[in-house]
Amino acid sequence: MNSYHLDYPLEVDSDIKNLMANAFGALVHEKEQGVTGYYNLPEESGLIVEEIKKRELDQKFDRIVVIGIGGSSLGTKAVDHFLRYKKVHRPIYFLENPDPVAIRHQFEQIPKENTLFIIVSKSGTTIETISIFKTALAHYKIDLAKDNEQLMVITDIDSPLHLFAQEYGIESFAIPKNVGGRFSVMSAVGIVPLSIAGYDTLGFLEGAKGMFERFFMLHEEHILQKAAFIYKNWQQYSMNVLFSYADELENFNKWYVQLWGESLGKKDPAGNPVGTTPIAHIGSVDQHSFLQLVMEGPKDKTLTFICIENFEEEIAIPDISLPHLAKTDFVNGALFNRLLNEECKATMESVKGQGVPTDKIVLPFINEDSIGELMAYYELLTSLVGAMFGINTYNQPGVELGKQILKTRFMQK
Amino acid sequence: MNSYHLDYPLEVDSDIKNLMANAFGALVHEKEQGVTGYYNLPEESGLIVEEIKKRELDQKFDRIVVIGIGGSSLGTKAVDHFLRYKKVHRPIYFLENPDPVAIRHQFEQIPKENTLFIIVSKSGTTIETISIFKTALAHYKIDLAKDNEQLMVITDIDSPLHLFAQEYGIESFAIPKNVGGRFSVMSAVGIVPLSIAGYDTLGFLEGAKGMFERFFMLHEEHILQKAAFIYKNWQQYSMNVLFSYADELENFNKWYVQLWGESLGKKDPAGNPVGTTPIAHIGSVDQHSFLQLVMEGPKDKTLTFICIENFEEEIAIPDISLPHLAKTDFVNGALFNRLLNEECKATMESVKGQGVPTDKIVLPFINEDSIGELMAYYELLTSLVGAMFGINTYNQPGVELGKQILKTRFMQK
Repeated sequence: MNSYHLDYPLEVDSDIKNLMANAFGALVHEKEQGVTGYYNLPEESGLIVEEIKKRELDQKFDRIVVIGIGGSSLGTKAVDHFLRYKKVHRPIYFLENPDPVAIRHQFEQIPKENTLFIIVSKSGTTIETISIFKTALAHYKIDLAKDNEQLMVITDIDSPLHLFAQEYGIESFAIPKNVGGRFSVMSAVGIVPLSIAGYDTLGFLEGAKGMFERFFMLHEEHILQKAAFIYKNWQQYSMNVLFSYADELENFNKWYVQLWGESLGKKDPAGNPVGTTPIAHIGSVDQHSFLQLVMEGPKDKTLTFICIENFEEEIAIPDISLPHLAKTDFVNGALFNRLLNEECKATMESVKGQGVPTDKIVLPFINEDSIGELMAYYELLTSLVGAMFGINTYNQPGVELGKQILKTRFMQK
Repeated sequence: MNSYHLDYPLEVDSDIKNLMANAFGALVHEKEQGVTGYYNLPEESGLIVEEIKKRELDQKFDRIVVIGIGGSSLGTKAVDHFLRYKKVHRPIYFLENPDPVAIRHQFEQIPKENTLFIIVSKSGTTIETISIFKTALAHYKIDLAKDNEQLMVITDIDSPLHLFAQEYGIESFAIPKNVGGRFSVMSAVGIVPLSIAGYDTLGFLEGAKGMFERFFMLHEEHILQKAAFIYKNWQQYSMNVLFSYADELENFNKWYVQLWGESLGKKDPAGNPVGTTPIAHIGSVDQHSFLQLVMEGPKDKTLTFICIENFEEEIAIPDISLPHLAKTDFVNGALFNRLLNEECKATMESVKGQGVPTDKIVLPFINEDSIGELMAYYELLTSLVGAMFGINTYNQPGVELGKQILKTRFMQK
């Protein structure tokens, strides 16, 4: 299990207790009424893992291509990237952004033979995803009738994409209607490709399930306190910065930014704009980039440090002293694992000295369980802050206008 | 040449005119007095390119490894990543973060034979860089006396690393004393590895030089106006968000975040913390992540859109209509180049409708000239805002404390 250390200056008075109790109640209500279905995914998706295990067809595949964008790819990428040191059966490639240079580059790397293409889109009509899918059909000369075993679809039941898949006998997996893209990593969206790749997705779901269960049994009160602090002070601390001490967390960072920004950047019931801005960095490299601003700039940020206790990769800094460079010898003989974690602690201490509210999350290992729990934790935290703001955490009305303008621009020319 | 379209609600009254004139004067002073040396790099570094061209030794190398962190690697990475579609002579690998999993992964990919290792550190004693260098020495069994042709050093004159290089006859290039890491991409720091890799670094320097020259001839007044708006409204618009519409700009985004955050997050002469927070995203993918917050959340951000007019990679969306998916056919036949740029325009339009101050930078091509100019532009903008704040744009006192704490932690145990 991960550990969570909250160091926010929060006085838990009766006001805060009420705020926390109400938000907790709101999440219980959401779960019971099915306002959102993500709380139940760790249990439900066990069946998907079983189903995948039975698919003998997958033995044929050497690699997986996920065609999807935003909530349809970020969660899968986060888990895949976090665990990339593991030897899996099949690497996953992502066709995501409609950048022609990137698409060409990917096409050159990926052969058609023995490749499983998984098209992921909740609505089934995401313009980037369907356009890239069509391009892949043309580039790889995929015959929809004959090559349908190499295709798979993950989408809402009865979406246009689902109907398309049925037409050609393409296997499809459903996303529960009440699970939005950014909360969907524990649905088929993440579980299908990650299971076929060879990850221990049951372990991933177990990690998440434990967190959800403990939370709803009120055994993870620190999440309520963190949400209360962020909500109460959101106008002063308008940015929530994640400092993740591991390259492997880079795509988790991106997943967090989407989860937070798209869920909480909303108009509240009174019509006022609310929401804090998520920012995510990698330690120690970004100490050389962002730390100066945190230390001496405006005190408008909270900082969350994530570190990994045990990388299971024992590389030591050699105990050699180079002429003129003895100044750096104080780390000689230490594992990089330790250097990274001491950098995390030293940075946290220096930042706290400046009065910056900080908290820390420690993952014991780089494994499925710890990332599953971490993602569940962030989903809960997001839902709690959303409940405190009184907003709809699960929609994204603000992105529609751009889509309409895009369509109009194409129609006119 | 790039084009710049400023759409900020700035009324240029006498107050603003004075502000701009004073900041411009400050930069002229910096340049003339050598407060910072970056303005002169495009001219000075032409000699480095010539010198590199003469090195016959480089023909032996198949790849380059840059060992450096922060300002010692971000600029080089930004240019290399931007131009990665080009066929260069030698790929560049970066050993940057002290993450043991990442280091192992890189070591497995990089053979010793025919590899040039370039160690970059301005101070010469950066703890991550020297530790990774020592680890590379041990892993590759590099004999400092015999293998010195495979090593190169880029550092300050007379730094400990420079003295070390002299001791072993390792070639070294100097960083001018008055050029800080984050402003050093046009010095040897960027020019040496990029030239050996095979990029047109003269074109890169030309792009930058043109921008500096036009600016100091007062032909790029829009930069002054943008700086004035950011400075005047920094407490309302506390975040400056970059939306770059190309995967190839991802590392440029990171370079921008360091340049801006570390330069401008400071205490002003009165001791007050100042500075806006840089945030950087990639379009269109991050429309599915960050746009909702920009549209409906607090109006505390300015947005800069960067797009590329001509990707020179002509992939068209096939003109095929799939059953049930006709809704997406309106982009059929269009180039992805166009889809991406129309998304940029549509998003910009929708965001402007919400009263968000926006500006747009258009790069005509993905080439050395356009990225050189863009980097020069951002350096000037940063210096101008720093001058308006009355801060020292070029130091970073806030990161020292963490380094001291780190050392103490290691000394104690």
